[in-house]
Amino acid sequence: MTTVGILGGGQLARMMALAGAPLGLRFLVLDSTADACAAQFAPMLQADYRDEAALAEFARRIDVATFDFENVPAESAQWLADHVPVFPNPRALAVAQDRLAEKTLFRELDIPVPEFATIDTRGELDAAIARVGTPCILKTRRLGYDGKGQFRIKSPADADAAWAALGPQAARVGLILEGFVAFQRELSVVAVRGRDGELRAWPLTENWHVDGILSASLAPAVADESLQAQALDAARRVAEALDYVGVFALELFLHDGVLVANEMAPRVHNSGHWTIEGAETSQFQNHLRAVLGLPLGAVRPVGHSCMLNWIGEMPPAAAVLAEPGGHWHDYGKSPRVGRKVGHATLRAETTAGLADALERVGKALGREAQVAPVIARLR
Amino acid sequence: MTTVGILGGGQLARMMALAGAPLGLRFLVLDSTADACAAQFAPMLQADYRDEAALAEFARRIDVATFDFENVPAESAQWLADHVPVFPNPRALAVAQDRLAEKTLFRELDIPVPEFATIDTRGELDAAIARVGTPCILKTRRLGYDGKGQFRIKSPADADAAWAALGPQAARVGLILEGFVAFQRELSVVAVRGRDGELRAWPLTENWHVDGILSASLAPAVADESLQAQALDAARRVAEALDYVGVFALELFLHDGVLVANEMAPRVHNSGHWTIEGAETSQFQNHLRAVLGLPLGAVRPVGHSCMLNWIGEMPPAAAVLAEPGGHWHDYGKSPRVGRKVGHATLRAETTAGLADALERVGKALGREAQVAPVIARLR
Repeated sequence: MTTVGILGGGQLARMMALAGAPLGLRFLVLDSTADACAAQFAPMLQADYRDEAALAEFARRIDVATFDFENVPAESAQWLADHVPVFPNPRALAVAQDRLAEKTLFRELDIPVPEFATIDTRGELDAAIARVGTPCILKTRRLGYDGKGQFRIKSPADADAAWAALGPQAARVGLILEGFVAFQRELSVVAVRGRDGELRAWPLTENWHVDGILSASLAPAVADESLQAQALDAARRVAEALDYVGVFALELFLHDGVLVANEMAPRVHNSGHWTIEGAETSQFQNHLRAVLGLPLGAVRPVGHSCMLNWIGEMPPAAAVLAEPGGHWHDYGKSPRVGRKVGHATLRAETTAGLADALERVGKALGREAQVAPVIARLR
Repeated sequence: MTTVGILGGGQLARMMALAGAPLGLRFLVLDSTADACAAQFAPMLQADYRDEAALAEFARRIDVATFDFENVPAESAQWLADHVPVFPNPRALAVAQDRLAEKTLFRELDIPVPEFATIDTRGELDAAIARVGTPCILKTRRLGYDGKGQFRIKSPADADAAWAALGPQAARVGLILEGFVAFQRELSVVAVRGRDGELRAWPLTENWHVDGILSASLAPAVADESLQAQALDAARRVAEALDYVGVFALELFLHDGVLVANEMAPRVHNSGHWTIEGAETSQFQNHLRAVLGLPLGAVRPVGHSCMLNWIGEMPPAAAVLAEPGGHWHDYGKSPRVGRKVGHATLRAETTAGLADALERVGKALGREAQVAPVIARLR
């Protein structure tokens, strides 16, 4: 009997436990909040990630540890790795936690990245804006997600406002200035690397964000083989450089035929949720297979899928459930503005069938704007 | 927040909870054994089904109840139904628990059934054998499953041995004598009926048993439209007669082009496990959708699937996991002779591809005999 420990008890941990049950696994979730939604389907230890006594108990009760959440304190991940196997390894986590380390790695690996500069003081900001050019984005190096901790700079005159917004965090989490990529499309590649070094990547996914939060994903993306190959190549280089084990995602911008790396998520990823129904093996099960050293599952797509994120609160389920290829995912969370509370995946055998389903669901839910860009891409 | 109570905490309850989580449901399992495998992924109340205080607590904590197990005492099901909605209804459960009531219903509905006779005394047995003819099978009316509680009678001379084996149970569970159907194939239809009366059936499945226990299922069965229509028609008549809500299975014998009804299972069924990967919506999720009055999901097959049951103990997983369409299901049970501890489903886009996969897996696991009849059917 193998028990997998998961740091973080959100929807990713929840879907991981559901996907791992058929492998005969048991789970133990570590989370600081009493109502973590993974705890509805897995035992939970409620404690702060920095609580060493709790980490010790956690380590004692599990055989291997992984994450649903990349912002685990580096020291906690390292402490754990000294006591129990941890995948991905703490170094990979540390690199992915830090936009500067991540972009530096991408550059070292010859993966196209936007211009960037590290910023420690107000004085450095003006020089960096001059060098990177406008528009650009000031971001926290660490602890940002879903568009949080970012300030868009349209011209050098915005420097004061940007500093007022994020400057106070410079000392604590660091700042980085990144050139804005005038992308034509946002894509991601979700890949898995086994303990033995085997790498598999699901088909490229196209993503649409609203207010910095993922709104819709289409997979397979409408993209030619050369883009797939570029993405796979980038994923392989990053994974090998970090000796990465498990699932990760690279968020990419398509700019004039080139995929520019935006960031890496060292975990299962929202843009891979469609794999639950839309691929032979889901990202959640393949992450566990990798972490446990089991053979990886096939990543071939099964039909065409679109994932729609539900943010803040769940819409009524009936319209999606009534669709022939409609699949519902309610994370069991209470509603809150900006919170990811669930998603739906629509699957169809053809792109035309998927577009029709999206049109029906968008109309039934009054969410025409959410489905419109996906339909436009499909038709 | 809706909590579904499940009487019985075996693998069916376990797979139901895993399939219901994405609907945002919570579960509570009632089982008399401490190590019921569903409890690894759902809260459990450990108590005897006849314990009225426990039933009261169970009813208080749930919104609706269903079963993973048909041999719940009829009084317990009725007590529960007086306190909380229960699907399927206790009458349907009672009919399916009793081979005599079940076969009588089939006959009333003009569904072909084997000859049968009820037996209360040794004296009645000889007359019944004369009337039903040999070979025939003496069975307990209630509490039989997986070939248990059955005695094969090849000639009238076997009557004494049959009575010695099962006679002592005549007073407690009743006995029935059934004509033996010299079937060419064993099939099943798994269907779901919603609260609104809508009925959907997955494609016919062909089944192979070993020692009375399901060994392999192939879906869709290699069968023409007229058999599908016969099966759907029988399923509809039974479900409507019982005002059935939820998933059920009819086990059928194919005899000279006619489907003869063997028995009904008033629950999700082992021959429907392939629907987890092999159909747009699994039997587990559709059972819950029906019980909750939600729209039913599509029952279309996704490729060709073969389910292999693991009895007694789990084989090594690697050969199945390494298959491009290999899916593993370990129920988290301890090994025991004759116990269903898990299954695998192989899925492929073509029947030829499925046959090849079965050949590889059969060879790798030394289970050529288990896969051989399925391969023979596919080629």
